[in-house]
Amino acid sequence: MSQKANIEVCLSPLLFPLVDHRGKNVVVIDVLRATSTICNALENGASAVIPVETMEECLAIEGDDLIRAAERNGQKPEGFEHGNSPLEYTPSLVKGRTIVLTTTNGTRCIKMSVGADQIVAGSFLNLDAIVNFIRNENKDTILFCAGWKDQFNLEDTLFAGAVVDRLKFDFDYHNDAAFSARQLYVNSEEHLLDVVKFSSHYQRLTKFGVTKDIEFCMTLNQTKIIPILNQQHKLVPHLL
Amino acid sequence: MSQKANIEVCLSPLLFPLVDHRGKNVVVIDVLRATSTICNALENGASAVIPVETMEECLAIEGDDLIRAAERNGQKPEGFEHGNSPLEYTPSLVKGRTIVLTTTNGTRCIKMSVGADQIVAGSFLNLDAIVNFIRNENKDTILFCAGWKDQFNLEDTLFAGAVVDRLKFDFDYHNDAAFSARQLYVNSEEHLLDVVKFSSHYQRLTKFGVTKDIEFCMTLNQTKIIPILNQQHKLVPHLL
Repeated sequence: MSQKANIEVCLSPLLFPLVDHRGKNVVVIDVLRATSTICNALENGASAVIPVETMEECLAIEGDDLIRAAERNGQKPEGFEHGNSPLEYTPSLVKGRTIVLTTTNGTRCIKMSVGADQIVAGSFLNLDAIVNFIRNENKDTILFCAGWKDQFNLEDTLFAGAVVDRLKFDFDYHNDAAFSARQLYVNSEEHLLDVVKFSSHYQRLTKFGVTKDIEFCMTLNQTKIIPILNQQHKLVPHLL
Repeated sequence: MSQKANIEVCLSPLLFPLVDHRGKNVVVIDVLRATSTICNALENGASAVIPVETMEECLAIEGDDLIRAAERNGQKPEGFEHGNSPLEYTPSLVKGRTIVLTTTNGTRCIKMSVGADQIVAGSFLNLDAIVNFIRNENKDTILFCAGWKDQFNLEDTLFAGAVVDRLKFDFDYHNDAAFSARQLYVNSEEHLLDVVKFSSHYQRLTKFGVTKDIEFCMTLNQTKIIPILNQQHKLVPHLL
């Protein structure tokens, strides 16, 4: 009997150095809202999203017809035309264009994952596509929750739990974080949005009036696209 | 209406710098097994437990009739007569004596908590005593899960969840870790030991044949003693 591959959950960027990501696949998760925004932008026809860490990098990257987007502390910083709302990235805006994106949490995690075999972006919007990707790859995989400023957060953990739950027969998940994430998800799946309303990031974001964003981010399977990091450090659409 | 005090859960020592513990109370949690051992030793008549970080410190501390105890990677290191099994600390061994204890996870967290207002040790063995202590103090409290080598672990999180659940009407717990820990506990409370059998530390410890230890550590309310750190950095028994 062949040994199953392993699925691990990392609950915070501060805990990421404890997992050895070299040679494994990493799914970066920032449900509210970076990875949801990336999924939706690619679904709507953007040709790529370049994740960068700083606002300076975001402004400095050269290219034609770029959309420069930034988010800090849940809001669009001064000097940027575009922010981190997935609903902002409509087909008429993004079709055929490249977005350069920097956010508080998610884009940093993509950079931290460099050295992994494949790096993909996961959100509820592409849940089943991510699950199928992991199943097809059939190798050790880290579900990397971006959290909020290094803190554990509920919505990313719920997504990790949703993935573990769907792969529970195909992969081993002998780590306490994966077990716990799955438990949390299984107890919440019938009323995900209600549970997320308890989260501190929901409280934070609703102050900025982005309730519609959150409802959208908690909608399952709006796209089959898997944003995958290519050799040029761009997230490009991948379809199975 | 007076504002409620807040209860926070810290899921790993690596995340502890993110919470500001100054002026708050901290409950250090290392269910398997350091804080269970401390609770049981004090219940059985030990006069104090001195938590130290290193084995060198453990051997160097001077005093009459000390019991020097150490644990590394779940086992008793060479050169030590006593380890980290709570069942080892019987009344006939510990009555009136002071134990100097160093462990892989728990004793380090006690040191990290210095600067807090009160530092106490929590385990399922003194669950209700800890809950009563927090309720009586009625101030901001951090439930500090020791984890395993900085990793999130299940059993400490379940204990934190048990505490949050019992204080849910008296305290605010507006942080995602407290919410999630409580959820995990509520779903597990009818079969706590079975759930802990999924944990990686259970798998680790059973290799060393300490199943009885684990069963004992998962038993609720065997003592009313609250181990509290005094000015001499000794954990001494406190009763409400």
